[in-house]
Amino acid sequence: MKNYKLEISYDGSKYRGWQRLGNTPETIQGKIETVLSKMTGEKVEIIGASRTDAGVHAKMQVANVKLNTNHTSESMYIYLNEYLPEDICVTLVTEVDDRFHARYNVVSKIYEYKVFNSVHGNPFIRKSTYKCEKELNIEDMKEAASYLLGEHDFTSFTNVKSKKKSNVRNLMNITIEKDVNNMITFEFEGDGFLHNMIRKIMYVILEVGKGNERPIVAKEILESRNRENSLGTALAKGLCLKEIKYN
Amino acid sequence: MKNYKLEISYDGSKYRGWQRLGNTPETIQGKIETVLSKMTGEKVEIIGASRTDAGVHAKMQVANVKLNTNHTSESMYIYLNEYLPEDICVTLVTEVDDRFHARYNVVSKIYEYKVFNSVHGNPFIRKSTYKCEKELNIEDMKEAASYLLGEHDFTSFTNVKSKKKSNVRNLMNITIEKDVNNMITFEFEGDGFLHNMIRKIMYVILEVGKGNERPIVAKEILESRNRENSLGTALAKGLCLKEIKYN
Repeated sequence: MKNYKLEISYDGSKYRGWQRLGNTPETIQGKIETVLSKMTGEKVEIIGASRTDAGVHAKMQVANVKLNTNHTSESMYIYLNEYLPEDICVTLVTEVDDRFHARYNVVSKIYEYKVFNSVHGNPFIRKSTYKCEKELNIEDMKEAASYLLGEHDFTSFTNVKSKKKSNVRNLMNITIEKDVNNMITFEFEGDGFLHNMIRKIMYVILEVGKGNERPIVAKEILESRNRENSLGTALAKGLCLKEIKYN
Repeated sequence: MKNYKLEISYDGSKYRGWQRLGNTPETIQGKIETVLSKMTGEKVEIIGASRTDAGVHAKMQVANVKLNTNHTSESMYIYLNEYLPEDICVTLVTEVDDRFHARYNVVSKIYEYKVFNSVHGNPFIRKSTYKCEKELNIEDMKEAASYLLGEHDFTSFTNVKSKKKSNVRNLMNITIEKDVNNMITFEFEGDGFLHNMIRKIMYVILEVGKGNERPIVAKEILESRNRENSLGTALAKGLCLKEIKYN
């Protein structure tokens, strides 16, 4: 039994997210498992580091898979990229220690959210950015983001009702940068994220940037620890899993 | 009768090119004319600067259209972007002198061709770049390109059989640049281009870059003035109309 680590990049536009849903093939996990099963003849289950939602993209998702196969990493890499659709690319296959687990061993994850802040359309980035015509106030958004940094109970920023698991997460870093082409990149690094957490944070930050809310509202919502206080959920298409860090 | 200048950006992946073909709506020109007809109630014919082929993109196509309407440029801009599909964006509408003609008044056109020179896939640029796994020799490609600069008869680089019109064009500038992400951008500026000219030039340059042909072959093909000597036509999806220059 060998353990393989995969790095995967995908345009999530057409998929119902990472996680396999029954037998529907329209998930990233489902597509990859189908190809690996075809290659090895085994029933395959891959473990992804992050369960990205429908429409969310990944520059670097990480997964691991245990197989009885004798295929080399290189032949798996070639086979996967030959049979996967063009919007899913495997960028690395490597044999790893048996104990490597793509989800449990995560030290931190980095997501980015892209906002095209322009009155003009751009057909080339329409599926990977949220377009906002109103000029966003960068300083106010940075202030709002600053209240969320550190270890907090992020219950207000998730749509999961369960109270069984802890909603405490450590949001280590948030950066907000606008380039000369009016693309604003929001980057979030954390030890883990609740379901919809970044999109719910982004919704608040964008409301602040538009001048619809004061920056301090981010702090008030956070401290209420009540998901009923969520202002909304930003569009999935602007979100992209950028990197997974391991020790 | 007013004359309007339009600037248009489009992802050409799904279209049969710029030029309207009978009554099929699947062209960029057709889409825009249909929306303008709906807005004005007039039969509308727009004149594009460049007849981009099926699958070719545009960062900035220019067109003009004469209308009897009293609509302002601003209301046309808003209406067009509301009713055009997301892969066609109008970025400017402005009233211009009656004598402005988007095609006849062109001083030069700039096209770019994008090659992703990597063994890895990138799902986000798959529709706007040609992917080449073999490392391309930049210096050899620059040498090949240099033979094509200036005013020449480019008969060898077109698929049009007609000998009635001149195939002499002035290719003023070609630049080839590779960035840190292994994206190579080829830029061509000329006073005009024959049908398929850039894609046929690109095919030769890429063969040189791959080491399949010597750089001097570009010169030999050019001087033969014989379209039977064409080596091939590079994929449409890497090509993008970047800019149209007027006086």
